[in-house]
Amino acid sequence: MKQSQLFYRTLKEFPKDEEAISAKMLVRAGYIDKLMAGVYQFLPLGLRVLQKIEQIIREEMNAVGGQEILMPALQPREIWEKTGRWDMDVLFRLKGAGEKDLALGPTHEETVTPLAQKIIFSYKDLPKAVYQIQTKFRNEPRAKSGLLRGREFRMKDLYSFHINQKDLDQYYEKVEQAYEKIWERLGLDKITVKTYASGGTFSKYSHEYQTLCATGEDTIYLCEKCHVAVNKELINEQKTCPECGNKKLVEKKAIEVGNIFKLGTKFSNAFNFKFVDEKNQEQPIIMGCYGLGPSRAMGTLAEVFNDDKGIIWPENVSPFKAHLINLKKDVKDAENLYNQLIKEGIDVLFDDREDASAGQKLSEADLIGITHRLVVSEKTGDKIEYKKRGEKEVKLMSDKEIIKLLK
Amino acid sequence: MKQSQLFYRTLKEFPKDEEAISAKMLVRAGYIDKLMAGVYQFLPLGLRVLQKIEQIIREEMNAVGGQEILMPALQPREIWEKTGRWDMDVLFRLKGAGEKDLALGPTHEETVTPLAQKIIFSYKDLPKAVYQIQTKFRNEPRAKSGLLRGREFRMKDLYSFHINQKDLDQYYEKVEQAYEKIWERLGLDKITVKTYASGGTFSKYSHEYQTLCATGEDTIYLCEKCHVAVNKELINEQKTCPECGNKKLVEKKAIEVGNIFKLGTKFSNAFNFKFVDEKNQEQPIIMGCYGLGPSRAMGTLAEVFNDDKGIIWPENVSPFKAHLINLKKDVKDAENLYNQLIKEGIDVLFDDREDASAGQKLSEADLIGITHRLVVSEKTGDKIEYKKRGEKEVKLMSDKEIIKLLK
Repeated sequence: MKQSQLFYRTLKEFPKDEEAISAKMLVRAGYIDKLMAGVYQFLPLGLRVLQKIEQIIREEMNAVGGQEILMPALQPREIWEKTGRWDMDVLFRLKGAGEKDLALGPTHEETVTPLAQKIIFSYKDLPKAVYQIQTKFRNEPRAKSGLLRGREFRMKDLYSFHINQKDLDQYYEKVEQAYEKIWERLGLDKITVKTYASGGTFSKYSHEYQTLCATGEDTIYLCEKCHVAVNKELINEQKTCPECGNKKLVEKKAIEVGNIFKLGTKFSNAFNFKFVDEKNQEQPIIMGCYGLGPSRAMGTLAEVFNDDKGIIWPENVSPFKAHLINLKKDVKDAENLYNQLIKEGIDVLFDDREDASAGQKLSEADLIGITHRLVVSEKTGDKIEYKKRGEKEVKLMSDKEIIKLLK
Repeated sequence: MKQSQLFYRTLKEFPKDEEAISAKMLVRAGYIDKLMAGVYQFLPLGLRVLQKIEQIIREEMNAVGGQEILMPALQPREIWEKTGRWDMDVLFRLKGAGEKDLALGPTHEETVTPLAQKIIFSYKDLPKAVYQIQTKFRNEPRAKSGLLRGREFRMKDLYSFHINQKDLDQYYEKVEQAYEKIWERLGLDKITVKTYASGGTFSKYSHEYQTLCATGEDTIYLCEKCHVAVNKELINEQKTCPECGNKKLVEKKAIEVGNIFKLGTKFSNAFNFKFVDEKNQEQPIIMGCYGLGPSRAMGTLAEVFNDDKGIIWPENVSPFKAHLINLKKDVKDAENLYNQLIKEGIDVLFDDREDASAGQKLSEADLIGITHRLVVSEKTGDKIEYKKRGEKEVKLMSDKEIIKLLK
C-alpha cells in the first residue's frame, strides 16, 4: 500500500479527550477514530490489526474443534427473561416493529443455548463447541478507556456442550492451552497471567487472563513462583496461591483480556435443555464459555507496547510487516524495492510521499509502529537502512538480505 | 469437516413460518436459524457461504482501490439530524448512558462523511474510496422474506470522494465493472440486470442491480436487446430503454442485489465538507455510494438456484467444494480419500455417519447442495461415483481423476 493513498491522518498531538495511553496512541496514529464515548471506528490501519488478531483467534478456536457461527445482535426480550437477565444494568434495550421489546446482545448465552437445543438431542451429538467473532454491545455508564472498555466492541465467545463434568473439564483444559497459544502469537504470553476467580455455583474457580499493566483497571495478586494470580474478589476468600499455596502474593495492576467459565447447567436449566444418555435417560447439558475480545486485545497491545515515540506492534499483528520509507529525491529506487517486496508477497506500507519531510516521515513511522523499518536514502547508496521498531541497532542491508529477512 | 461433527440439523419438512423459498431451503438445510422475524443466525454451513460471498466482494472492492474500514452500529442522534434523517421510518432508535439518543446504523453516510472530513483537506488527498462489510439494522415493519429483507443484515457499502463530477463519473464506471465481476463470480451474471433508477438531484440516473426471479419483490422493465432495465419508479417518467431507445420493455419480477448512486454534494453539504483546490479555493466534495448486501445475495442465490430436492450452489460460494459420502459398511476407504483431499487442500464435507441410511445421506446432500458430490460405495469398487449438483450425469472416477478435477 502506498502511504500517499492510505486513508489515514496522524495528529500532531495526543487527543485531549482520551485518558488511556492506548486510545491516545491509536487515535493519534490514525488507527481508530472516536465517534462517541466507548464507540470507535476502525480506519484501514486499525482494521488490519484487528483482522490479524481475529484471524489468530479463529485459527486457535478451529484447532480445538470450535465451529464458527454468527449470531444476531438484536434479541427478543423473552430469552433474556428466561435467564433473569433482562434487567441487567448494561443491557441496551430498544423497541422493534410492533413495539416489541428487544435487547442488543452483550453476550450470547441466551441465543446459543436454544440454538444448540435444536441441534443436540443425544449423547451421540456431544461434545460440541461453537464460537462467534462479532460485534457486541454494553451500555457502559463510564467508557473512558478507548478500546479497553467499549460500548460497542468486537468479541469472540466460544461455547461448549458436554455430557458430564469430566468431559467439560477436559475440554476446558484444551481451551486453556489454546488461550496460551493465542497470547504467545499476540506477543502477550510473558505478561499475561492465568488468574483464579470465583466459579459460581458449579465450579470452584473460573479463570481470567490478565495482562500485567501499570495502567490496568483490575487488581490481581500474583504468585511469582507459579506465574498465576488470584483476582480481587477471590483474594478475600483465599489468601494463598491456588497452585502452590505460596502466601506471598504481590499486588499488581492488570487488564483482563480473556475469561473462561464453567457454566455447568445454569443456561441449559433456564431453557430446559437436556440430552438423552446411553441408557435413554434425560440428563442436563453441561456448558462452558470462553471469552476473548479482539478489540480489547488490540487496545491492550497498544497500552503495553509503546514508547514516547509511538506504538511498538508485535510482528504478528503489525498492520504491515514492513514500512518502506523513501528519503531520496527520486522515488524510483524505493519504488523498485516496493515492487520487489510486493512480488515476494511481503505486506508493506510504502511512504512514497513527496510533500513530507524526512523528519516527518521517520517520526510518523515510529508513531505508527510497524515492526520492520526500511529506509532508502541518498547516504546509504545501494543499501537499505534496516531498523526494527523498539530496537536501537541500525543495519545496512542489500535488497536480497531484506527479502530473506522478511519472507 | 466430518459431518458427524458438524453443528447442523436438517429438517424433514420445510418450516411453516417462512414464506420465501430461499428461507425455507436455508432453514431446512441447516444454513440459518430464525431468531425472530427478519433476524437470523448463521450456522457453520451458512457462515461459510456468507464468508465466501464477502471475500469475493472484498477482493473486487480492493481491486478498485477501496480501503476497508469498520464503522459503528451505534450512532449519536446529532449526525442523523444534520442530514434530516433522524425521523426515517426504519431507523432503530434507543437510549444510551445518560439518556443520550442513539440510532443503529441502517447505512453509514452519516458517519463516513464526517470521518472523511478529518482526513481529506486538499485536492491532493483526492480521490479516495473506503468500504465496510458489516452488520446493519433496519426496523422493517414486514420482514417475511428471510435473508432477502432482514431487520439485521450484512452489508457492503463503498463510499467514494472526488474533486469533481468527471472524476466521480469515471470511478462510478470502474465500480460498475467491479460489480459485473462480482455477479460473475457469484454465478449471478446471466440473470442480473443493470437497472436504471432515478438519480435524485445530482444525477439523471442511479442504478440498481436486479436479479431476475419470478418470486422477486421488485418489478422492472427489461430491454431484451441491451440486457438492461428500468425500475418501476422511473418507468413512469420514461417508457423507453435508456441505452437504445427500444420501446418494447418486458415486465419482469426481480430481487435488488445492489445499488449504486451518485450522491453529489448531498452529504458533504450537510456536514460542510469541502476541499481546497489547486487555486486554493474551497470546493464541495463530490461523493458516490455503492451498496451490495452479502446476506441478501446469499438469500438470492438460494432463491434462484434450487430444485425440488434442495439448493444448487454455484461452485464459488458452495459451503464446501466437495461432499464426500460414504455408503460402505467400513468407513476406511472413504476416510482415506477424505485425508487425501484434505492434504491436497480441497475443502470437503465428509459424510462419515454410521447411523444414517444411504437414502438419508443422498437426499440430505441434495438438500445442502454442495457442488461436487463424491460417493464411495460397495458397488463402485475402487472407483468413486462423481456427480455435480443440478446435473444428471454420474461418472465413475479414480482418486487421481477426482483430485485433478477438484484442484
